[in-house]
Amino acid sequence: MTRILYSLCGADESRPFSPHCWKVVLALHHKGLDFVERPSPFTKISEIEGGFSRTVPILRDGNELIRDSFTIALYLEDTYPDRPTLFGGEGGRALSRFVERFTQTVVHPAISQFALPDIHDMLGETDQVYFRASREKMMGKSLEEIRADRDAAVGSFAAKLDPVRHTFRYQPYLGGEGPLFADYILFGALQWMRITTGAQVLTHDDPVQAWFERCLDLYNGVGRSVAPA
Amino acid sequence: MTRILYSLCGADESRPFSPHCWKVVLALHHKGLDFVERPSPFTKISEIEGGFSRTVPILRDGNELIRDSFTIALYLEDTYPDRPTLFGGEGGRALSRFVERFTQTVVHPAISQFALPDIHDMLGETDQVYFRASREKMMGKSLEEIRADRDAAVGSFAAKLDPVRHTFRYQPYLGGEGPLFADYILFGALQWMRITTGAQVLTHDDPVQAWFERCLDLYNGVGRSVAPA
Repeated sequence: MTRILYSLCGADESRPFSPHCWKVVLALHHKGLDFVERPSPFTKISEIEGGFSRTVPILRDGNELIRDSFTIALYLEDTYPDRPTLFGGEGGRALSRFVERFTQTVVHPAISQFALPDIHDMLGETDQVYFRASREKMMGKSLEEIRADRDAAVGSFAAKLDPVRHTFRYQPYLGGEGPLFADYILFGALQWMRITTGAQVLTHDDPVQAWFERCLDLYNGVGRSVAPA
Repeated sequence: MTRILYSLCGADESRPFSPHCWKVVLALHHKGLDFVERPSPFTKISEIEGGFSRTVPILRDGNELIRDSFTIALYLEDTYPDRPTLFGGEGGRALSRFVERFTQTVVHPAISQFALPDIHDMLGETDQVYFRASREKMMGKSLEEIRADRDAAVGSFAAKLDPVRHTFRYQPYLGGEGPLFADYILFGALQWMRITTGAQVLTHDDPVQAWFERCLDLYNGVGRSVAPA
């Protein structure tokens, strides 16, 4: 059976960077499921699987097509119940949504404040036109203005992760003694930041950085296999 | 068997307001366990059970004495496994810690910015002396300065709950279809705000307010039985 993860790339296909696609990469490894990854530029996503989704990740699993990272994780959990669990039960499934919403409403906007110009520079020419227009509209300022405020945005980032940082006083992963999908949600965001910006945003003695390094090492270092910018 | 929850009150013993004690009140109801609540002023906590803990909640369960709200929830889950679960499995247990740390590092400080003067005014004279000294040191400003900034603090509060607000697009409780201990953690914070400040901080059409109202109705309205300030 062919299992295909359609993900996102810039001009260099070997450096997929989408936070949402990285969540699925780790979820598939967590479940021990083989797959091939097919990264696509932004402006070619509409050509994938007959225009199935406006966004990636898209997972083809045999005859099934699934979109959206959380929906894919739920699908994997329900379809492969005998493989290691991604949620650790019903409570974990529900609370993973809170981790996702925290990441989406707090962490992603904070990273966007300094990563967007770097992402732009990684893209092919056609994607750059689309990306600049859509992101400048979203942020209400030009990529050049965002770049000018980079140091302030980087400097204010670490504090946003205080709830995570304090959790690691009690346990090595958000999921407890080992990683669960909740960890991959936050990992996706920091991996996106690492691959696109290369910025050393967290100090080496930060418990969040230590956790991120542990996540980079998972599954034969699949996360680490793409070098930082 | 006598089960006693030692909690916190001001001059009026009938209006216990500690966020951490409210978590345990709902957790005990969730498990269907009878108990009597014995509220204490701040400066009498050291006299409870021979000076067992500097803080409440303290739970006496037969011969057992347990302190700290999260530790008490874990104790209840492990001691009464046949009663309704507080965590919904191992994943929920781990991720509830993240909800606790989010509440403690984001929500509690935001509420403190406007609630502390109101709490002070609820206390007996001896407690007021202790409370003013300890809280002014913690906040780095006087209760009068905090009171002067009240409107700004109230105005900036709702946005802090965005991760929660967005979660309720997917499910009625943090714990999923029904409440889990994670809900009681956040409920404790908003109940503390409600009882001490009486401020209408969230709008009536806010999904967080709707969830809070549902929580106030739980267990024959035990949360609603203490009127707002």
